[in-house]
Amino acid sequence: MKKLLRKLTGPLLFAIVAIAVFDLTPAMAQEEAGPVDEYLELVEASGAEYAPAFDFFTVSMLWTVIAAALVFIMHLGFATLEAGLTQSKNTVNILFKNVWIISIGLVTYAVLGFNTHYPVDAWQIPGWLGINGPIGDLNADGGDTWGYGGLSLAMTGYGDFIFQAMFAATAATIVSGAVAERIKLSSFMIYSTILVAFGYTIAGSWHWGGGWLSTLGGGDAAFYDFAGSTVVHGFGGAAALAAVMILGPRSGKYAKDGSIKPIVGHSMPLAAVGVFLLFFGWFGFNGGSVLSANPGPLGLVFTTTALAAAAGGISSILISWIVLKKPDLSMALNGLLAGLVSITAGADAVTVFEAMLMGAIGGVLVVFSIIFFDKIKIDDPVGAISVHGVCGIWGTLAVGIFGGANLMSQFIGVIGVYVFAFVFSGALFLILKAVMGVRVSEEEEFEGLDISEHGQEAYNHSNT
Amino acid sequence: MKKLLRKLTGPLLFAIVAIAVFDLTPAMAQEEAGPVDEYLELVEASGAEYAPAFDFFTVSMLWTVIAAALVFIMHLGFATLEAGLTQSKNTVNILFKNVWIISIGLVTYAVLGFNTHYPVDAWQIPGWLGINGPIGDLNADGGDTWGYGGLSLAMTGYGDFIFQAMFAATAATIVSGAVAERIKLSSFMIYSTILVAFGYTIAGSWHWGGGWLSTLGGGDAAFYDFAGSTVVHGFGGAAALAAVMILGPRSGKYAKDGSIKPIVGHSMPLAAVGVFLLFFGWFGFNGGSVLSANPGPLGLVFTTTALAAAAGGISSILISWIVLKKPDLSMALNGLLAGLVSITAGADAVTVFEAMLMGAIGGVLVVFSIIFFDKIKIDDPVGAISVHGVCGIWGTLAVGIFGGANLMSQFIGVIGVYVFAFVFSGALFLILKAVMGVRVSEEEEFEGLDISEHGQEAYNHSNT
Amino acid sequence: MKKLLRKLTGPLLFAIVAIAVFDLTPAMAQEEAGPVDEYLELVEASGAEYAPAFDFFTVSMLWTVIAAALVFIMHLGFATLEAGLTQSKNTVNILFKNVWIISIGLVTYAVLGFNTHYPVDAWQIPGWLGINGPIGDLNADGGDTWGYGGLSLAMTGYGDFIFQAMFAATAATIVSGAVAERIKLSSFMIYSTILVAFGYTIAGSWHWGGGWLSTLGGGDAAFYDFAGSTVVHGFGGAAALAAVMILGPRSGKYAKDGSIKPIVGHSMPLAAVGVFLLFFGWFGFNGGSVLSANPGPLGLVFTTTALAAAAGGISSILISWIVLKKPDLSMALNGLLAGLVSITAGADAVTVFEAMLMGAIGGVLVVFSIIFFDKIKIDDPVGAISVHGVCGIWGTLAVGIFGGANLMSQFIGVIGVYVFAFVFSGALFLILKAVMGVRVSEEEEFEGLDISEHGQEAYNHSNT
Repeated sequence: MKKLLRKLTGPLLFAIVAIAVFDLTPAMAQEEAGPVDEYLELVEASGAEYAPAFDFFTVSMLWTVIAAALVFIMHLGFATLEAGLTQSKNTVNILFKNVWIISIGLVTYAVLGFNTHYPVDAWQIPGWLGINGPIGDLNADGGDTWGYGGLSLAMTGYGDFIFQAMFAATAATIVSGAVAERIKLSSFMIYSTILVAFGYTIAGSWHWGGGWLSTLGGGDAAFYDFAGSTVVHGFGGAAALAAVMILGPRSGKYAKDGSIKPIVGHSMPLAAVGVFLLFFGWFGFNGGSVLSANPGPLGLVFTTTALAAAAGGISSILISWIVLKKPDLSMALNGLLAGLVSITAGADAVTVFEAMLMGAIGGVLVVFSIIFFDKIKIDDPVGAISVHGVCGIWGTLAVGIFGGANLMSQFIGVIGVYVFAFVFSGALFLILKAVMGVRVSEEEEFEGLDISEHGQEAYNHSNT
Repeated sequence: MKKLLRKLTGPLLFAIVAIAVFDLTPAMAQEEAGPVDEYLELVEASGAEYAPAFDFFTVSMLWTVIAAALVFIMHLGFATLEAGLTQSKNTVNILFKNVWIISIGLVTYAVLGFNTHYPVDAWQIPGWLGINGPIGDLNADGGDTWGYGGLSLAMTGYGDFIFQAMFAATAATIVSGAVAERIKLSSFMIYSTILVAFGYTIAGSWHWGGGWLSTLGGGDAAFYDFAGSTVVHGFGGAAALAAVMILGPRSGKYAKDGSIKPIVGHSMPLAAVGVFLLFFGWFGFNGGSVLSANPGPLGLVFTTTALAAAAGGISSILISWIVLKKPDLSMALNGLLAGLVSITAGADAVTVFEAMLMGAIGGVLVVFSIIFFDKIKIDDPVGAISVHGVCGIWGTLAVGIFGGANLMSQFIGVIGVYVFAFVFSGALFLILKAVMGVRVSEEEEFEGLDISEHGQEAYNHSNT
Repeated sequence: MKKLLRKLTGPLLFAIVAIAVFDLTPAMAQEEAGPVDEYLELVEASGAEYAPAFDFFTVSMLWTVIAAALVFIMHLGFATLEAGLTQSKNTVNILFKNVWIISIGLVTYAVLGFNTHYPVDAWQIPGWLGINGPIGDLNADGGDTWGYGGLSLAMTGYGDFIFQAMFAATAATIVSGAVAERIKLSSFMIYSTILVAFGYTIAGSWHWGGGWLSTLGGGDAAFYDFAGSTVVHGFGGAAALAAVMILGPRSGKYAKDGSIKPIVGHSMPLAAVGVFLLFFGWFGFNGGSVLSANPGPLGLVFTTTALAAAAGGISSILISWIVLKKPDLSMALNGLLAGLVSITAGADAVTVFEAMLMGAIGGVLVVFSIIFFDKIKIDDPVGAISVHGVCGIWGTLAVGIFGGANLMSQFIGVIGVYVFAFVFSGALFLILKAVMGVRVSEEEEFEGLDISEHGQEAYNHSNT
């Protein structure tokens, strides 16, 4: 029996199995069509090569789409955080921008972003630039199963697409916070569209699309950025810095006598809702980046992510208490985010105590960074440059220090992506400034963008 | 035997393991009880017929309950959207109504709704009416596995129940928004209970319960409504229209000189939170309607759902900007929802570019529809009739245009369900009006329902 | 051949499949490394003993981490509920406390909580006390698979850790609500740290860590608390009672003439958001406590949880309407939570109608309990003692009445845990009171903790 079995080729064996195990199925299918029949047809149709671990594929794919939904809810987190930390007269504007960003981010990703992010063999400049067109029918090539990515990708084409699409809009959302309260809406809408469609996807292709960052040292010294400390958060932070430098601070923020006027946010509950939702969604952002439901790394990533955030919150609370003499809620909230950005590059590659250390250092960095940028008159209402830009650098380098990545490659990757993001964003912003202006008038800024741009107010408490 | 085994290579070992495992399990169970033992007992107990694809069943069932949780959070989305788009003096009332709706919706669904929605062989008028009693022990008939629904349903009886139960309250929630700010609480509580318990479930039985809509053309031309553009959203929208027509507009909304007084919402952040949560929950609403974790359709449905929403947001932003001369946040938010309703009937049956087109058209429709209903003095504070009713029609017909469904059957389904919803809701509302009144007094309306009905205020910012 | 196969029994067939399928894998692995290869290596490496049901393990582990994320979002629910039901002048303080609690809760759980909660063989006083050190590499002992917990635990070590870690901070969060608006921040931060690190984990070890409550009657009459009506919610409620008794009521709450001044919450939308998020997260809290993706219990637990909450909401609405003469939103919201706490001990052990009855009784209890505690001048701004403490008792005993648990053991468990929580919390609070004070000054309380403790305001609506 044993001998006989060994002689049989895989496909035949599989056929036999199918007959044996599922012999009942065809007959049943005639009576009653349902998911099992469809599922078994898939198994059979896929042939021997892709037969193994079908259920592993299915559960991995399920996780991928759930993770996509979790990353989606981060956009609500960004929207409420940004709204909470700014003035109530600009709230409609901020919410509007965030509806725009997620909408245009998803659509452009289908139209050209996905294939530019992953140029595969369609690079115009190999390893550096590959702008390509719309997605096709991603379920086409046996795409319901291993057919799409082969055994190296436990998700369907649409799973791959929707998870990455949810990431794409993030870069623009980070900028949105930094330029809030004085940017011209129409300019921002054009800026964010181009940034998401081309800027983010080109930079991302260098690492995740198989570009030059993924082949450093012939691949042996490849740049390592698990879920995007650099290629998502750092990109957004560096783009924000360029935009803010060109845009200038909010009116009255920095007086001529050198004093800094605090412009406080209008709703701390809204800000806190935002940060907790971001934390929640980050389980999809990092956890989904395992790219399968492999239980070992999945549990580790959830744990390092949560503990880095917690350590960032604690260190930020303590250090800001010392520096600012008060237990500051904004800093506590930014500390959680700092911890999250700091672990994003290495969530699968460090121990839990390294994760806590990385998060705690991120929580300290963010406090000093926010104070520093305010001192040099870079006016970032929500601290986005510090949270995403500065902690993005730290998180990326930390994988070289703790997680076994090549530290030099990490440096190269940070510099490559940050410089590109800064230049791309800056050039785009300067062009927009020349062509149509990027800033509202001083009167409009004083009146608030809600009235001047939208003719709506965010709150109406006196209506009877 | 043991010696022999040691010599065998891994694969064969694994084979033997499989034999051993399924054989040894009872013995192991004695030593150590745990989920595997229980699981394997289930596999054995189910016998040959249901043995295949056990893990597929398990992962599909997991997705079903997660999707149920996602649909649940849509109720928070509805509550905050409705509260945000109305006046602050009616906020307690709105939140209260939504607590009531989800509570009574779940309980009535257990008491009679589920078995009325799925009458199986207990129709009183076959294909049209089958009002039945409470659910029993849905795990009874080998219900932990394929035993409940056979190979055609990859979920347990409780999975089936809880997912559908979360849908049930939606119809009443849609009406809640349309009648807000002037409806009498006690009347609404009775109305919503009967609507959810009988109206929604009867209409739903025509399609999902195997009723006449599912057998059009002998089943070959069956009405197609994947996740409920018509049988959930359209039902709610049509019911809302009847209710609003009987109830009349809010005082002062339409002046005698023909002018329309805008009554603006009190909190756009609350409204935006609502829409983003609805978008988030819709991944469960549509994704869960795959009714399994089958990776092919699951990825497609997530993608079409997200892209239709995004396209609806964009088209609504652009068209309302042209029509209203301002970038309107309410319209942007309604555009996202319009896109979602528009794709709900065909999320699994169209390409991603068809999905975007369907969503974009929905986003245009909703803008003109809201303006139209306001012109004809149908006062719908949140635009529910337009979002759910009008886009529900569009979404359903669109599956006939793009998705291969029979267009005539789609028409018949829309007319059947909308007319029934309109008549059921209208008759119920007229009876309540005659018996106990459906509207608060003008003084109460002016004072606000929070004080007049609840003796509470939603906000208290001056307390020290 | 076909005939031969037909004769084979099910298990052998499985064996053949295993040979066929896994035989091809090594060859493939050389070509293309990916999750499947890693996954199959795991399967092989784990050896015969742990080979079965790998996919069941994977899907169960996925559910565990998703459930952890759902429990995480409960912390946002607690934060917003507590903020909403209190005055706006204390909102920053409340949000800050909640950032602290989740952060320190996660970190202490890694440093000592987990190994104290589950002392395994490292008890100092067997069955009663086992304080132990930090977690190590929980993926070490073949921890990616059944290696960590054997066949009795369908999750990895990190899955186990992160799910339990999310529970841990809950106890402190419950206290946070009860002591709101007058507690000194620094004292609360120390208190909550010790309560979470030692108090909760020690009490939990008695039941979930294999301690004395799990061995009552030699294990035959073991205390039964499925997801923690007593060991989580009851613990928090009893700890809160001790804290409130020592702390005293808010200034002016109880006048000398015996009258009670209502101090109303500042934002009912925030409170409602909190309760709906708690309801949402409870699907992870109870559903995750199935500790696997076993479809039978999973569907049942989701159903009983939702229906108990709904019944609690309805009964609370009706009874409070009768008692208070008004439909009270706070009571409606607390009714949902009361239903949830009431089902938590027995969610897997009762029928759906028993679940509704348990929830409905919880909803009644919470109304009278809140009124009662107010009468005896226990000032609990959010009703935490009633919701978590009182309904925790009811839910635990109800499993003895309806769910087949030993009623005497349930009594013993309640008394044991509640007395311990009360004494631990009280002693800790008294020490803190003596050493550094636990209450802000009357001026600070009057001014609000936001200004006096943080120098920040939660809302700034007049900024231009």
